[in-house]
Amino acid sequence: MLADKIHITPPGSLYARIRDELRARIVAGVYKPHARLPSESELMSNYGVSRITVRQALGELEKEGVLFKVAGKGMFVSLPKPFQSLARLQGFAEALSEQGHEIYNHLVGIKHLPASSAVAQRLGLAEGAPVTELRRVRHLNRQPVSLDVTYVAAHLGKRLAQENLATRDIFLILENDYAIALGYADLSIDAIQADSELPELLQIADGAPVLRIERLTHTKDGSPLDFEYLYCRADNFQLRARIER
Amino acid sequence: MLADKIHITPPGSLYARIRDELRARIVAGVYKPHARLPSESELMSNYGVSRITVRQALGELEKEGVLFKVAGKGMFVSLPKPFQSLARLQGFAEALSEQGHEIYNHLVGIKHLPASSAVAQRLGLAEGAPVTELRRVRHLNRQPVSLDVTYVAAHLGKRLAQENLATRDIFLILENDYAIALGYADLSIDAIQADSELPELLQIADGAPVLRIERLTHTKDGSPLDFEYLYCRADNFQLRARIER
Repeated sequence: MLADKIHITPPGSLYARIRDELRARIVAGVYKPHARLPSESELMSNYGVSRITVRQALGELEKEGVLFKVAGKGMFVSLPKPFQSLARLQGFAEALSEQGHEIYNHLVGIKHLPASSAVAQRLGLAEGAPVTELRRVRHLNRQPVSLDVTYVAAHLGKRLAQENLATRDIFLILENDYAIALGYADLSIDAIQADSELPELLQIADGAPVLRIERLTHTKDGSPLDFEYLYCRADNFQLRARIER
Repeated sequence: MLADKIHITPPGSLYARIRDELRARIVAGVYKPHARLPSESELMSNYGVSRITVRQALGELEKEGVLFKVAGKGMFVSLPKPFQSLARLQGFAEALSEQGHEIYNHLVGIKHLPASSAVAQRLGLAEGAPVTELRRVRHLNRQPVSLDVTYVAAHLGKRLAQENLATRDIFLILENDYAIALGYADLSIDAIQADSELPELLQIADGAPVLRIERLTHTKDGSPLDFEYLYCRADNFQLRARIER
């Protein structure tokens, strides 16, 4: 159970120093997301090293996902994986457009239907009470990232069905247009394998891992208002949180 | 989830009323997790209904996962899916034993090795600096739920290697035994398909969805201290959070 062996780093090789310096510049924002890196020849003369050394450094950063290659054009800085913070209750567009992403919602269905027992329980309604189900595929930079299935009481759902849901968050419509102050949301987070309609809607393989979030949003005065299932692609999206001891 | 959110279906069929009333009693804690429900005959006489009606109600609750059947013994109340809250930074044992679960950690490996670039960057060390990797499979009620791969600087790792890691959280050892006050942790959450050693360690199918958490825990004064990858089964475990608008 005790120490096998301690391996000490070999004194940093030339390519490793260049790789680390390039990474540091990317992290520091000297080279910005989607910017082209200086060419191999420029890097060779900047660092006074051979092409092999430059290629080794770039190759490692490519493997790390920090850079990507465009044939005939050179190496480019990758975008960091987009994420939604759990620090504050925000709609998808609200949270992600702050990070400079382009958001679009594809409304794939609106239905008025009787509440299932699970939905009724969450929204504090009688089972079978009229609710509205809104299904939206959220796109980030023109790629689908999540399917949001939202349930609200039908009187609210019928109003929402008239709104521009392609670019506006439901949260902002509720607050700004309907003057319903939002309070807190309770989230449960797990993971499932993509099945039924998810692979097609999210453009992922059958069985691909999907982050599943149940979110029950309450009004400021604590009444349940909006119950959602969020199915998020895990390859191009993540959740982040900072928690205190 | 609260009892006051449950509304019994007004017209509904007889079996649906019994199903909803039993569910409400379970949610309210009248029937507790792992308790045996009254027998079919008792329920028949309590509600004055036929065996078919009782069986239909119980069958639906079984399908919902609220009840489970033990052959020859009757119907029992399921445990709610165990969860770890993101409200406060806690170790696994600390968080889950509060919910009444039995915790055990199987230490599957300790290695002292040079920090990879990803680990070095997180812990604020030079690449190749000596670190310790601790691999533990966390068990909840004797079922594996997560693989925790922890990296700390080697001077700390060598001390931790001497400790009882089977039942004690690293967080509590750091705080109580080493007097290192913990501050906050940054988490990134996504999902992957189980591969390489995960299916065997977590006793899940190859390709099963796994919740992946990167957690970087800092000391009270803000220095990175403990970097982990947590791979959690999604079928018997979830994360929960409450977030404010």
